[in-house]
Amino acid sequence: MKAERLIYLPLGGAGEVGMNAYVYGYGPKGKERLILVDLGVTFPDMDGTPGVDLILPDITWLEERRDRLEAIFITHAHEDHVSALSHLWQRLKAPIYARDFTARIATKKMIEAGQSADPVRTVAPMPEVIEAGPFSVQFVPVSHSLPEASALLIDTPAGRVVHTGDFKLDTAPGVGAPFDEALFASLGADGVKALVCDSTNVFSLHPGRSESSLPDAIADLVRAAPGMVVATTFASNVARLRTLAFAARDAGRSVCLLGRAMHNMVRTATEAKLLQDFPATITPEEAADLPRASVMLIVTGSQGERRAASAQLARGTYMGLTLKEGDTFLFSSMTIPGNEREVLRVVNALSEKGVDVVDNSAGLYHVSGHANRPDLERMHALLKPQILVPMHGEHRHLRRHAKLAAENGIASAVAPNGTMLDLTGDAPVIVDQVQNGRLYLDGSAVYGAMDGVVRERMRMALNGLVLVTLIIDEDGAPMGDAWADAQGLARQGRSRRALNEVIEEELAEELDRANRKLLDNDDKLIEVLKRRVRACCVDEIGKKPEVTVVISRLSDN
Amino acid sequence: MKAERLIYLPLGGAGEVGMNAYVYGYGPKGKERLILVDLGVTFPDMDGTPGVDLILPDITWLEERRDRLEAIFITHAHEDHVSALSHLWQRLKAPIYARDFTARIATKKMIEAGQSADPVRTVAPMPEVIEAGPFSVQFVPVSHSLPEASALLIDTPAGRVVHTGDFKLDTAPGVGAPFDEALFASLGADGVKALVCDSTNVFSLHPGRSESSLPDAIADLVRAAPGMVVATTFASNVARLRTLAFAARDAGRSVCLLGRAMHNMVRTATEAKLLQDFPATITPEEAADLPRASVMLIVTGSQGERRAASAQLARGTYMGLTLKEGDTFLFSSMTIPGNEREVLRVVNALSEKGVDVVDNSAGLYHVSGHANRPDLERMHALLKPQILVPMHGEHRHLRRHAKLAAENGIASAVAPNGTMLDLTGDAPVIVDQVQNGRLYLDGSAVYGAMDGVVRERMRMALNGLVLVTLIIDEDGAPMGDAWADAQGLARQGRSRRALNEVIEEELAEELDRANRKLLDNDDKLIEVLKRRVRACCVDEIGKKPEVTVVISRLSDN
Repeated sequence: MKAERLIYLPLGGAGEVGMNAYVYGYGPKGKERLILVDLGVTFPDMDGTPGVDLILPDITWLEERRDRLEAIFITHAHEDHVSALSHLWQRLKAPIYARDFTARIATKKMIEAGQSADPVRTVAPMPEVIEAGPFSVQFVPVSHSLPEASALLIDTPAGRVVHTGDFKLDTAPGVGAPFDEALFASLGADGVKALVCDSTNVFSLHPGRSESSLPDAIADLVRAAPGMVVATTFASNVARLRTLAFAARDAGRSVCLLGRAMHNMVRTATEAKLLQDFPATITPEEAADLPRASVMLIVTGSQGERRAASAQLARGTYMGLTLKEGDTFLFSSMTIPGNEREVLRVVNALSEKGVDVVDNSAGLYHVSGHANRPDLERMHALLKPQILVPMHGEHRHLRRHAKLAAENGIASAVAPNGTMLDLTGDAPVIVDQVQNGRLYLDGSAVYGAMDGVVRERMRMALNGLVLVTLIIDEDGAPMGDAWADAQGLARQGRSRRALNEVIEEELAEELDRANRKLLDNDDKLIEVLKRRVRACCVDEIGKKPEVTVVISRLSDN
Repeated sequence: MKAERLIYLPLGGAGEVGMNAYVYGYGPKGKERLILVDLGVTFPDMDGTPGVDLILPDITWLEERRDRLEAIFITHAHEDHVSALSHLWQRLKAPIYARDFTARIATKKMIEAGQSADPVRTVAPMPEVIEAGPFSVQFVPVSHSLPEASALLIDTPAGRVVHTGDFKLDTAPGVGAPFDEALFASLGADGVKALVCDSTNVFSLHPGRSESSLPDAIADLVRAAPGMVVATTFASNVARLRTLAFAARDAGRSVCLLGRAMHNMVRTATEAKLLQDFPATITPEEAADLPRASVMLIVTGSQGERRAASAQLARGTYMGLTLKEGDTFLFSSMTIPGNEREVLRVVNALSEKGVDVVDNSAGLYHVSGHANRPDLERMHALLKPQILVPMHGEHRHLRRHAKLAAENGIASAVAPNGTMLDLTGDAPVIVDQVQNGRLYLDGSAVYGAMDGVVRERMRMALNGLVLVTLIIDEDGAPMGDAWADAQGLARQGRSRRALNEVIEEELAEELDRANRKLLDNDDKLIEVLKRRVRACCVDEIGKKPEVTVVISRLSDN
């Protein structure tokens, strides 16, 4: 008889901040019944993924075992937890469970992508229990930076797992339920086999601050501002939107929302009855007609995204609104590492307009949604797990979090994406490494990160491209000269003549001395011409371009 | 009679941190005699300048007036102040003045680029005076993060200008002269017309810390480390290299330098007699043979540069050395905004190897080389200038620095690159906007940022490329089918067939119905085929690629 086991397998989110996708399984080895927690995206950048629209986890392993997949649970509505559903659900086809606000967002995303939203099932927080094969799952409210974030209480025959999702310890989060220490202590009292825990802020040494520490400072800033006030934050941070809007109202300003995500989130939160006291908003046209000191804009684009409202306002007029000297722009946000250039581009463009930019450098206008190191230790202490598995973090976060657990006498393991852990025993054991990686959504196509498509793009971007076409006539002789076209290369180089022309001359020379054997062999001829183009470019412009040679043989036609 | 005037014109460095190039002029309008202060580079990135090697200031304005250029002064040896000399000096051909260490670096760079180093003239700090037309210039030692940084004392018939270069107020900088408050006070006592001042750290509110605050903490860290210690910092920070090497020596470790820049800087500093007490170093082979606890590596790559020693050690074995569990890696540096992704890539790769990474997040292991806001105010107070011109900063820094001056009753103006200021009167007056911008060094070619080369690269990277070739025979009819090759595009899309084939089929269809008039008109035919390829790609993969169509007419040959 084969022993049954409890396994954990991250396919995304462990070794990165983004595209969360965690598999749990219970059953005999190779026959475990499975559940998936979260299915999110990560965002591309020009640096490594030019032209890509979204990055999704490679769920091939799970797809191949979808007959064993009982359910998908979504902890909360952030993009890195929910947004791959609409692109990958067809490959999994399991029911999706989420709380009301999250389910509304998931439903919208499914419908926008032309999918049926039928698989999305709205569930209440604990004590409602979802039975999924050997798993009994409950949603436990936690505080985070958007409404209705949840930890998952996953009871299995091998014991209880608490999967925190993203969380912080906030007893006054503004919107939604405060963090309930007593509840978590009671979950711990029943015995926790494994705590699978958010690691994002493990390097932040001070206890996290509450959302409720912000309203006074924000209200003071808005009240003192002479001109128009613009504030940006993540649209999903509904508590923050409320704080910003209240600060506007208290300073006698009307609120105008800019940006699609901002409208969507406020609408969804209102429909979910989470924002019933939100002030009435005005249109951009109405805002433009009011005195500047009577307006506050709440806008998308806290990360400097080029097409978001912030960047557009920084560059010029957006929706009829133009910023100017005496206006104040508040980043009620933090810059995600890697987005600094984009954010600073917006800040400097605002500076050129004479707009005063205020950010969170003094710690007054933003708080993180993740538990800091002391808060993580508090969570460990409340739940007293036998095993701690760090998740939701880069490798350095996971490693530090595992070390923290070890320091406190809790068995732990660093398990990056693709690492299967057996949690059945007293300590986690690595039992497998499975296929994992990234898929790129690019337009409407989805392909693998290692398929070479993006590598081709990067090469063209780094090296430029020379295109050569040549016709070989029925007698096997070149018909006229080869024709060359350079793209993304200096127009002229050392000889001060057009690069294309220099290349064509050298190719003519090369063809002149080509013998019959070479001319008859496409592969060899292409190789010789490529080499000549590269040598010519090195000589002229000190650079080896990508080269594509197309040979057309009239005899072939 | 035309009045003479004193002008200031930044061609680089004002509105950015990088490629410093500041012009001063004195004389009748349009006939001013000119000097140039600094000629530096800035660094490209995949985001905006893929494939570019270096970014240089566009000095066209100065080149067109080089008959009026008396001299070039280099304040210090950082890349953003000296490294464009070897690429642009031929366009200017004026003598280059610098202090010994800087002149040595400039000389090496000129020779490496195949230029004569004859124009480089080594000068002593004040009281040596360089007469350059109407300008009398002296090098005034300041503290910074490399040896022999200098402010320039520029006396003109219109009064005295102090151009700070990069500086901090450090009375114990480790290597080189301490900041001399009394000297600056005496310069101020003689009356300063204009202070042209470093703005980099205007947003740092606490007084700057001394280089001498670091050795104890670094020594403690190195002493306590169990395995190999690796430390990275800017190679030019000679004082820091000395501190790191002393910490190694005091902990009984031998020092091994890795990275070309590291060797170059230590050699140059030694030749300049600035590092005579530096411990003897060992080779990588010797380091590999010693117990790990007896070795400290000092390596290049504090910004995560892919080809530097840090990144190579993080990825695998470099020069026979491999890091492992129990080793310590110290970033004795700060991450320049925009380099976060690269640095974190190195940190996470080190984490995967089990290496403990220590950085400056607790403020123990690095100090900035620039004056913080209170230090800037101290400099203002010492020199009591009539006019303050903020330089060396992004627009937000310049604006904040100008505001700081205004708060202290000093006339000021924000003058980004290309803005000519007349400093003759009591307050600065903007008198011209001149051509300015960026040049890209790409291989051996130099071209303008706006020439479209990089735009072509970005488009290929973002959109992918389809190449179409078609032969039209002597009778004006298509000879066989058009041939399509897609690069940087999904291999297949909606129809689950090879994208190239689908495109070729659609082109065949298009050519079938093309009439004679269309087939005779290259421009129109190309346009029609491009449109068809784009439509096909939108349909198949949801993306509009770049398209190049090459039509070969047999009749033409």
